Amino acid sequence: MNATTKLKQYKDNIEPILDSFFNDKIAKAKDIDLSSSEMIELLKEFTLRGGKRIRAAYLYYGYKCFKNNKEKEIMKASLAVELIHPFLLIHDDIIDQDDKRRKGPTIHKAYEQIFQNNKDIDPEHYGKSFAIIAGDILYAFANEILTKININNHAVHNVIYGEALDILSAIKTNFNKQDLEKTHYLKTASYTIEAPLQIGAILAGASEQQLSMLSKYSIPLGKAFQLQDDILGLFGKEEELGKPIGSDLKQGKRTLLILKALETAEEDDKAFILSTLNNQLITKEDINRVKNIVIKTNSLKYSQDTAKKLIQQAKAAITKQNLKPEGKEFLLGIADYMLERNL
Amino acid sequence: MNATTKLKQYKDNIEPILDSFFNDKIAKAKDIDLSSSEMIELLKEFTLRGGKRIRAAYLYYGYKCFKNNKEKEIMKASLAVELIHPFLLIHDDIIDQDDKRRKGPTIHKAYEQIFQNNKDIDPEHYGKSFAIIAGDILYAFANEILTKININNHAVHNVIYGEALDILSAIKTNFNKQDLEKTHYLKTASYTIEAPLQIGAILAGASEQQLSMLSKYSIPLGKAFQLQDDILGLFGKEEELGKPIGSDLKQGKRTLLILKALETAEEDDKAFILSTLNNQLITKEDINRVKNIVIKTNSLKYSQDTAKKLIQQAKAAITKQNLKPEGKEFLLGIADYMLERNL
Repeated sequence: MNATTKLKQYKDNIEPILDSFFNDKIAKAKDIDLSSSEMIELLKEFTLRGGKRIRAAYLYYGYKCFKNNKEKEIMKASLAVELIHPFLLIHDDIIDQDDKRRKGPTIHKAYEQIFQNNKDIDPEHYGKSFAIIAGDILYAFANEILTKININNHAVHNVIYGEALDILSAIKTNFNKQDLEKTHYLKTASYTIEAPLQIGAILAGASEQQLSMLSKYSIPLGKAFQLQDDILGLFGKEEELGKPIGSDLKQGKRTLLILKALETAEEDDKAFILSTLNNQLITKEDINRVKNIVIKTNSLKYSQDTAKKLIQQAKAAITKQNLKPEGKEFLLGIADYMLERNL
Repeated sequence: MNATTKLKQYKDNIEPILDSFFNDKIAKAKDIDLSSSEMIELLKEFTLRGGKRIRAAYLYYGYKCFKNNKEKEIMKASLAVELIHPFLLIHDDIIDQDDKRRKGPTIHKAYEQIFQNNKDIDPEHYGKSFAIIAGDILYAFANEILTKININNHAVHNVIYGEALDILSAIKTNFNKQDLEKTHYLKTASYTIEAPLQIGAILAGASEQQLSMLSKYSIPLGKAFQLQDDILGLFGKEEELGKPIGSDLKQGKRTLLILKALETAEEDDKAFILSTLNNQLITKEDINRVKNIVIKTNSLKYSQDTAKKLIQQAKAAITKQNLKPEGKEFLLGIADYMLERNL
């Protein structure tokens, strides 16, 4: 059997593995959000559309140069290598501004098509934005296969799925509090608090039950952290934050401040808020008017109260638990800091 | 000591570690290319410019909830977590079109500034392109710390450094054969052949010496692979490749075909080739004229001959070596395929 036949044979071996890998990820992503599973569907089609699988074959035959037996590790490493490749191609295609790859659209073009008829946004920018994070998630999948501390990869998947939801919040006019909570869990709670805490705990030999207790602390606290971030993004001081106030409005992001204000604001105020979303031309005065509406509708207070409640909930999850004092004190103390911070 | 003081203290602990991590990467990147070390300099400044290090602190105190002693693993995992964060921020900033972050320019804006005065290109696109790969390399650094099979991360670093060189080839008018060889090693040989082969070999328990023998096979073969890619990119069939012919010209890429043709072409042909580089408006006829110049200057033959020589060199590196037949046959056979392939 000649080398190209072997290459073809290896391709036929690895592709069903890639296929079932993606199917598994699609099933899991469906539990997160439709935007998550759609992303993986696109990535599956892109990855399986073509490719010689030359890297995977080299990996296999590099092994075969030194050993005759088969090993499970080889297939895992091959899979990882074949996921890293489309990650690099997707980013490459954005950089090279290529429309086609393997007789089909590149990922940024495929996403651009999806957003084509949306007049509120620039489909080209949206296409590229989704392609950046779609590439990132493939790399995170590959690392999940190769890495020791998998909880961190899981958090990176979450933050990417959350980023997709966050981008979509700008154009999804029916984006609601439930979507927002999901985004806050994925983008902030899982990644900023739950994953780091659990990695540390795992390194210290914590049990499953102890990890789950830490989740009960992390999730409400992470949501409170994000609420405070959104409050600072509108009511904070630009010189402290180091970035412009009101950029969430320009990006059309429906924070809890905005969602709640839209619920109860009078018609003209409501129309005004909607006119600032996705609007690159809003002025300082426009932002001040939005701030006033958010205050007078009690929406600011609502966000602050919600954050406070979440922080109490987080603290309650660990107060009576048996944790070493140094760790516990930090966890309780830093929870309060989440709302006190101005940056 | 209250929690915010502890957070500050942990920040003071982790930042010198981040600092020396980046310094080490800068030193290594200097051996690759100036564009590589410049990228890491920018990333160092961006990462150390600000940030609360809240994730690293959570990781540490997650550990401290269950154990009192210190552990080296904690610092490594903290470092990884603090590298993943700026990776996500950099991509986020592109997506959100933010100019500022932590009182300074975002990475895409910093790169945009660097390319500002270059009239051949779109500095905004270049800025974003470099920011995509700069983010990617931070993630690769983080994975290097966390991963089992490090050779693969090393290859991902290489391919990203190579991508930077490749982007620059479009505007570096003095881009020469040496730069090109470096790009081919980084973008193709290391990533497509050397790393997968060595991962397989390591899983089979190969020695350092055996790995180095595989490098001697991989490097010339990878360069030949890239030369053939470039030949197909200009002389291949669009329906087989699945992407447009001549896109390298539009992207201003100085392949060996172009470099060699520029060396010996007559003045008007040389001027014509230069006029097609970075030119989005070139026609099929323009591409055909470039092809004719590449043929008549013997530049096509030069690339083909170079590739053939490299393949002989690759095969010679393993022919007399003691390798198991199944692996060896594939490696020798597939080397020939590199030039025969039309896709």
